[in-house]
This record gives sequence, structure tokens and C-alpha cells, in this order.
Amino acid sequence: MTGDPVGSEPVRVEVGLGDRAYDILIGPGLTERAGAEIAARMPGVRAAIVTDENVAGAHLEAFAAGLAAADIASTSIVVAPGERTKSFERLQDVVDGILSARLERRDIVVALGGGVVGDLAGFASGIVRRGMRFVQVPTSLLAQVDSSVGGKTGINTAQGKNLVGLFHQPQLVLADTGVLDTLPEREFRAGYAEVAKYGLIDRPEFFQWLEANWREVFAGGQARTQAIAESCRAKAEVVARDEFETGDRALLNLGHTFGHALEAAVDYDGARLVHGEGVAIGMALAHRFSARLNQCSPDDATRVERHLSAVGLPTRMQDIPGSLPDAERLLSYIAQDKKVTRGALTFILTHGIGQSFVAKDVPASEVLSFLRENHPG
Amino acid sequence: MTGDPVGSEPVRVEVGLGDRAYDILIGPGLTERAGAEIAARMPGVRAAIVTDENVAGAHLEAFAAGLAAADIASTSIVVAPGERTKSFERLQDVVDGILSARLERRDIVVALGGGVVGDLAGFASGIVRRGMRFVQVPTSLLAQVDSSVGGKTGINTAQGKNLVGLFHQPQLVLADTGVLDTLPEREFRAGYAEVAKYGLIDRPEFFQWLEANWREVFAGGQARTQAIAESCRAKAEVVARDEFETGDRALLNLGHTFGHALEAAVDYDGARLVHGEGVAIGMALAHRFSARLNQCSPDDATRVERHLSAVGLPTRMQDIPGSLPDAERLLSYIAQDKKVTRGALTFILTHGIGQSFVAKDVPASEVLSFLRENHPG
Repeated sequence: MTGDPVGSEPVRVEVGLGDRAYDILIGPGLTERAGAEIAARMPGVRAAIVTDENVAGAHLEAFAAGLAAADIASTSIVVAPGERTKSFERLQDVVDGILSARLERRDIVVALGGGVVGDLAGFASGIVRRGMRFVQVPTSLLAQVDSSVGGKTGINTAQGKNLVGLFHQPQLVLADTGVLDTLPEREFRAGYAEVAKYGLIDRPEFFQWLEANWREVFAGGQARTQAIAESCRAKAEVVARDEFETGDRALLNLGHTFGHALEAAVDYDGARLVHGEGVAIGMALAHRFSARLNQCSPDDATRVERHLSAVGLPTRMQDIPGSLPDAERLLSYIAQDKKVTRGALTFILTHGIGQSFVAKDVPASEVLSFLRENHPG
Repeated sequence: MTGDPVGSEPVRVEVGLGDRAYDILIGPGLTERAGAEIAARMPGVRAAIVTDENVAGAHLEAFAAGLAAADIASTSIVVAPGERTKSFERLQDVVDGILSARLERRDIVVALGGGVVGDLAGFASGIVRRGMRFVQVPTSLLAQVDSSVGGKTGINTAQGKNLVGLFHQPQLVLADTGVLDTLPEREFRAGYAEVAKYGLIDRPEFFQWLEANWREVFAGGQARTQAIAESCRAKAEVVARDEFETGDRALLNLGHTFGHALEAAVDYDGARLVHGEGVAIGMALAHRFSARLNQCSPDDATRVERHLSAVGLPTRMQDIPGSLPDAERLLSYIAQDKKVTRGALTFILTHGIGQSFVAKDVPASEVLSFLRENHPG
């Protein structure tokens, strides 16, 4: 990992997508400066700010004031916090709010919040008038390093998570590293699972750096900005290679196939399991499953588990409070997952730290046996 | 207009959109041959057929049998006919049907029906798993010459028509000219308004050909295939120049700004006004408005009106049964229309037959005066 000079200027990471390329700015104080940054790039726009009740209480006033100071008129659409907000009904509410404000195609929808707000607002901005401009102001670590890069938007349905949505790239992402100071520890930690993921996918040196420096990342300051910037850079590289997830981009799902199944298994109850925790368990399982299939050394699986445990993340199914559906049921959640191709199970496996790969045609029977062995029940 | 050899082989029109390019096949018997045409291009896919109750009664059995004969397993999703089906609720039903059938990203959603089914199924296929493959089998003249070319999908909301949707190109369009024989005369005639539109936009010779040959187009056979192919070619050219409607593509809205306002004014009541009839009145109004603004000769406006009347289409607001909202209200429908940019009114006007142009900054006061003069109340 190469360090970046971090002064008063934010670090800039470009997502190279041709005529859909955009900048991610990372640094402290960007929530207040958002109006100026937006006005400089998109003069004359009006805005619909989509946020949730928690974020609205902490940041909406300052954010809207910053827009107003830059002569950007805005309307606010406040949704309930939590994964259940990613529904058709709330999508319809947000769409209705944008249309009622009579915003036009060149105006902006701003997602001020975490991944839920980003996914919902991004989806709405992609379908109102067949695609409006979109600006992300992610206020959680998870959103800053994951959902704000790559243009995936979506909602959940009875059949599973994120099965409905579209690819809609933002025009600008403003990742304010300062707002993360107000996050609950558990939420910051969950977001950290995605940071570690980038090391595990293909950046072994970054993973090693994290093993040594994770306390500084949690504490804030330059190490945090560096970790977020490196994560955005890692994701941007993969996304630029494969915008619409027809190949390499699947690597970003490391830990997510197991993770999504576990989230579905607890019915998306955030009290029991939040997304990043599911990913942490999923990554630990993916490494252990890879070891079982003789693809990676058991020592690497142990090393992953050790680091995730050190920062306080869960790594095993039994770390989830309450009981889980049986292994067969968990497999059915995996089989409905959208990363299934032609009935075969596709998994992200690994040959070791930072050496992940896409494995197609993983036999369902192997997955089932592995789930049974690792099931706490 | 150049003639095409029409034998047993369908006429092929390519929509040139780079890696999103696709073919439109036009000719008789394509409903039955659809399975073979799809299997040849997309081996191994499964299908969700979206259709409405009317079309299902006439064509679903033959169509599904054709798929089965080509080893394409399918599930059917039948919606109520009519513009009111283009709603969030019905979109959710279709999405649910596709997901429940466990179709994957590379499987296909088939729209078997008119514009409503195409817009709804296209929207659903664009958002399930962030974009599935899509095949159009348009069964109305309107859908064959308009909505099946260009990738626009959408639904209506309380704020207006087609304000929510996305651009999602099909992989293949099969326009069976034979199924049009079973259309009610009124519906065929409404679709014909869009055929005439292509002449009025930029093909004066095609308009002249239609003035001479419209009876043969209505009767079926080679003239019909020719007219449909020329319409698809005309639209495909515009779409290829401007896939996402940032410029030239707006020309396709000739007659639609007034037309959409009238459709909204009757609350999308198809008994009073169907889309093509709205477009016919809208085109007549657009020419008359252009003449009023000294942009085109009143003789051209009269010629347009004469041809549309000859085929039996309405050309004036008083041709709509029942009373209409006043001119101010009609203007408010126009101002909410998505073709508004920065608050200025954008209209498609014309310098004469086949010489249409995009006029920005048309003063709302001129539109209002014109609406008052032409209002039947």
C-alpha cells in the first residue's frame, strides 16, 4: 500500500468509467463543504436529499445549510433507518418525493446516509425520468468503502436481498471521514469488514498493513483516510474492469454469498446481525471452505479469523445470537442468491491471503456438508 | 422511401447501438416462429412471458408452444390490459413473478403484447437482478413501430405518464405483421399515427407515400410490412444518434407533449382517448402551433390534418368525447412533462412536412394562448 499525503485537501480517487467516470473525495469536513463541491461541478442544480431519521438528526441541518450557502435549493426526504427500508414501498415514497418537488433530469438526488439510504436513493435517482444525476454523501464506513463505489443500487424482496435494482453511477461521492467519529462502535467495526475484504481479495500487503495498523484506523486521522482511500481505489479498479458484473467484479462478493444467506436467515434483523458482520463471518467461512477444498492453507484461514476476531468481528455462525435455520435452509438462501449462474453454485474462493478467485460449478453437496459441519445447531 | 423485397423471410432492421445493438425482424408468422428465433440467438435460456388478458387469449398458447418446441421452458405472467397497468403495484407483481420462477440474469423476459406490456415488462427486466435479457414480441402496430425500438421502459405515477422507468435495450424484437389482422380497427388506426409521425419528423417522401398508400397499409400484406420496417428504420436512426435522449431523440416526441397532456387530462381513460389518438391530435396541434408562430405554412398544417382525418384519426381537442380541463390545467400537465428543461418549455415544432425541430424556451404564455384558442370549452 502506498501512502497518500493527507493535509487539508481531501484525497481524490477517480473511478475510471469513461463517460461515466466520477470522483470520490475523502477527508474530514466534507459534509459542510458539500454545497461548494457540488456547485463547482454542477452549477444551477436543485437537490432532493434522501436521508434516514438518525442521520437527519445528526447531519441534515448542516448539510442543507451548506447547500443553501452555495445557492442549491433542496427538499428533504427522510426514511426510517434500517434494512427494511430497502423495499418497493419506500422506493415508491422516495420517487414520489422527488417527482413532487418537480426536479428535472439534470437535478440531483443526494444520498446522505449509509448503505441503505445510498441503495434506495440511488435506485430512485436511476428510475425517475429514466435517470437523474446522483451524489453520494456516505456517512458510514461501510458506505464509504463499498456501496458508494460502483453504481450498484437496489432493494430487497421476499425472495432475497438486492435482487431488484440497477447500475446507476453517481456524479460525485463525498466521503467525510470526520462523521465516522459519531458512529456506534459496532457499526464502524462492521464497515471495517469490507476494508479487510480488499486486502483479502488481491492486496496482501494492504491486509498486512491493516493487521499492524487497525487500531489507528479505528482511532481516526490519517490512517483512517488512507485505509478508506485504498479501499475505494481497490474497488474502483475492479469496477472499471467490469462495470456490469459479468466477470471479475464478482470477486467483490468475497464473503457475501455466505453473508447474504446468514442475513436472510435472521430475516435481516440488525439486532442479531448487520451486513458487515455477515460479511466477516462469510469471509472466514470462505477461507475455511477454500481450505476444506484444498485450495488454500488452513493457516491462512486461521490468520483471517484471527485478525477479524482481534478487531471484534464475528467469524463463526455460533457468534450470531439466537438460533439459525438448518443447513438445508441456508443452502436454499444461497441458491436463490443472484450470483447463481445456470443452476451451478458460484463462490468466491481463495488460494490464500489476497489470492481470491471466482469458482463456478461448486457442487451444492460440498456446500451443504460444509454448512452442516459449521452449523452451531 | 425505398421498397424492400418481402418474401417468406422477415425483413431485418438493425438498431445500431454498439454492444447493445439488436435486430428487429418484421413479417408474418413470427409469433409461432419465436421459439426458434430466440433459441438460435440465445441457446439454453428460460423465459418469463409477460402478457395481458386480451393478448393471452389470442396468442399465448401458440407462443408458449413455440417456445416449448424449441426447448425453452417458460412461465407466464398475465396482467390486466390498459394503461392503468403501468403502475408501481403491477411492476411489483411482475418482478415478483420473475423472481418466483427463479430466473437468472441471462434468462429472458418476453413482452408479448402492446406498449403497456412492453413498457412494464421492459422495466421489470431492467431491474430484476439489475438487468436481465429482454425480448419484445409487439402485438400492436403502435408497439411494433414505436415502443419496441429504443429501449425506453416505464410506468405512470400520480404526477404523470412515463415519469418513472429506465433505458433497457431488448436483445431481439419480433414484429409479427400477421397478428395485426386481429386488432380492433381503432387500435390499428391509433398505431398508424406513429407511422405518420416518422414522415412528419424528417421523411417527407415517406409521408407522401403514406398519403397515397395508407389503404394498402391498413389492408395488410407487403405495404404494411414496408411501412413498419421504414418506421423502425426511422426510429432506429434517431435512437442510434442519441440513445439516452439528450438531444435529437426529442424529435420522436413530435405530437407527444400536447398528446401526453390530453391523455393526462382524460385520466388515461382509453375509452375517451388512446395514446395514438392523443399523438394524432398532438401532431395536428404541433403543426398548427408552428404555423401560429410563423415557423411553418398553414397549408402544411392543413395537409397533416387532412391525412390524419382521412384515415379516421382525431385532430382537434373537440374530437375527444366529454369535457376537458381548462387551458391553464392543460398547461400544468405540459409543464410537469419530463421534457421540460430548467423550467423552460421545450416543444417539437416544424418548418413544414418532414422538417421538425426541437424548440427550447417556448414561452408558456404562447402555449397558453394557443390552448385557449383551440379549447372546445
